[in-house]
Amino acid sequence: MITPLARLKEKISKNKSDAILISSVPNIIYLTGYSGFSKEEREAFLLITKNAQYILADGRYIGSAKTLIPDFKLIEISSKNSVKETLKNLKTKHKIKKLGFEGNNITFSEHKKLLTRFDDSNHQSLESLRSIKSSEEILKIKKACRLGDKTFDYILKKIKLGVSEKELAFEIEFFIKKHGADISFRPIVAFGKNSAIPHHQPSYKRLTTKDKFVLLDFGVKLNNYCSDMTRTVFFGKPTSEQKKMYETVLAAQQKVIESLHDISIYDAMAKNVDKVARDYILSKGYETIPHSVGHGIGIDVHEAPHLSPKSKDILKEGMVFSIEPGIYIPGFGGVRIEDLVVLEKTNPRLLTTSTRDLIIL
Amino acid sequence: MITPLARLKEKISKNKSDAILISSVPNIIYLTGYSGFSKEEREAFLLITKNAQYILADGRYIGSAKTLIPDFKLIEISSKNSVKETLKNLKTKHKIKKLGFEGNNITFSEHKKLLTRFDDSNHQSLESLRSIKSSEEILKIKKACRLGDKTFDYILKKIKLGVSEKELAFEIEFFIKKHGADISFRPIVAFGKNSAIPHHQPSYKRLTTKDKFVLLDFGVKLNNYCSDMTRTVFFGKPTSEQKKMYETVLAAQQKVIESLHDISIYDAMAKNVDKVARDYILSKGYETIPHSVGHGIGIDVHEAPHLSPKSKDILKEGMVFSIEPGIYIPGFGGVRIEDLVVLEKTNPRLLTTSTRDLIIL
Repeated sequence: MITPLARLKEKISKNKSDAILISSVPNIIYLTGYSGFSKEEREAFLLITKNAQYILADGRYIGSAKTLIPDFKLIEISSKNSVKETLKNLKTKHKIKKLGFEGNNITFSEHKKLLTRFDDSNHQSLESLRSIKSSEEILKIKKACRLGDKTFDYILKKIKLGVSEKELAFEIEFFIKKHGADISFRPIVAFGKNSAIPHHQPSYKRLTTKDKFVLLDFGVKLNNYCSDMTRTVFFGKPTSEQKKMYETVLAAQQKVIESLHDISIYDAMAKNVDKVARDYILSKGYETIPHSVGHGIGIDVHEAPHLSPKSKDILKEGMVFSIEPGIYIPGFGGVRIEDLVVLEKTNPRLLTTSTRDLIIL
Repeated sequence: MITPLARLKEKISKNKSDAILISSVPNIIYLTGYSGFSKEEREAFLLITKNAQYILADGRYIGSAKTLIPDFKLIEISSKNSVKETLKNLKTKHKIKKLGFEGNNITFSEHKKLLTRFDDSNHQSLESLRSIKSSEEILKIKKACRLGDKTFDYILKKIKLGVSEKELAFEIEFFIKKHGADISFRPIVAFGKNSAIPHHQPSYKRLTTKDKFVLLDFGVKLNNYCSDMTRTVFFGKPTSEQKKMYETVLAAQQKVIESLHDISIYDAMAKNVDKVARDYILSKGYETIPHSVGHGIGIDVHEAPHLSPKSKDILKEGMVFSIEPGIYIPGFGGVRIEDLVVLEKTNPRLLTTSTRDLIIL
């Protein structure tokens, strides 16, 4: 198996660079396995050349980094030995002229301070670096999905008259954390017409018999890997219109899954897969889906590939992504169903396994 | 009272800019009061000229933004109306030549895509924008501190033989969230020699009678404003060496607080305040504090002013910051005591009020 580090070094050679500076936390986790750095503040960089790899971090991390990241040489950053100074030294030592960096992550100020001294530094698109998952990674995502499925079972029992969106969101988070995991994003819980807002933030709204729609969108982060799932259940018997919405979304999702069987996955344009769900929902007289039909997932809850109308991504074996069509009628309500699949050699395999049958509570 | 928006507009005039592009979520919250945007993904920009202000966000936010941000004109970003296109139109409309932006927040790629077309765009240091707090803001921080103090009372009862660091960290988070607030950062819980690592991540380590040190560092986020506090308590009677460490840290903190009484606060260099604690701890034969003695706090848990040896910040009335000296002896243990103060006209006022007396459990 090609290690993430070897994969990156291939990229360095392919781009005819001398080295690459890694700054984004997900890529640091991917390349080192170490997840102790904050996402809020810049705490570390990796500098990777064709035949050496360094981690630059301050004194707080030296102890843990030494034990946990054995393949990297550690350079302690301090007021006496700044990142700038360190990069200057490494530039000389490794004769680095052409340096790649993550333009989507490095700030304007960091670029100015750290990178202008390099003869030739350029933005590298590393978006695809993590898009094909190893079997180990797929197993980690599967485990996160399993806890997600368990969470769904648990939360169904908590959906009762008078409960608030915030309370359910809290219960989801509580259950996940009690099981030693983290949430991969803030859970979305939306009752009634709030379910028509795709990114609704849980409010103090309490569940009534009139609401009917209960949309739950949440994910687990376990061993650095994320899950993501959405279910829309009904509190009381849905009207025929509500039922039709549900069945249309479910059929749209099923059509996407089937389309991944039929086509040769080696040249499946992600945008065409998006189109399968989008067109089906349009054909049933609903508005187009106001978001993309799916997104890759792994260390980040949103990463490549992107299943959207403008995507240029090609779906390949080993990719893991969501399929999440939805119908949203402002002032009335919305339905979204979201599952994760992994593309295997001959077919897609669902990683989330909670029932997709219409549930009436 | 000068509103945050008026304060920013003064800055535009002072810098002889025509407008400023705001991208960081804390500054968006500060200027609009709206906190619905993700910190993980770029979801909004503000464009502020001397006499107009716009918010650029996608369709998901249009509904809530309209009601919640009345003073801003809303521009919906979509695949048909990109941020780039919108900025181009606003440039023409308001004859913007000189545009300020947040160089510490805008990425290299965003700068290239969005800002190179402006005749003159330059990084604006907005670090000091939020450093002087209004009385309303101070009240919000005080309320967050009050819940922090309550959390400390609660967690003391949970410190028992065999409990793990992770369990206590979870209990802290659970208690804060149950009270309708959020954590301002992941709680640090460190037993025994782990307390010698200033940024220790809670582990599965269980408390034993040999550990003695129990270091707790946590904060509350309530109504967008953060608190932050640290206490080190003893599980069993401390040795005389441990007791001396505690007393030294407490005295160092007390000296800092007193120094804020003595000096005219209108020209108190933050680095001199840092020095008060640093020198005292050195004078008692310990190593220098491996972090800064304090940091401003508000919408962000770390913001200006910075109380560190290299800081150029001047402490002024209305600033709120932490005072958190510490002594760390690798392989043995550490003590840190952290409280928040607000600089009032004639003296500093503590916002955290949990006892700082040595606690033996």
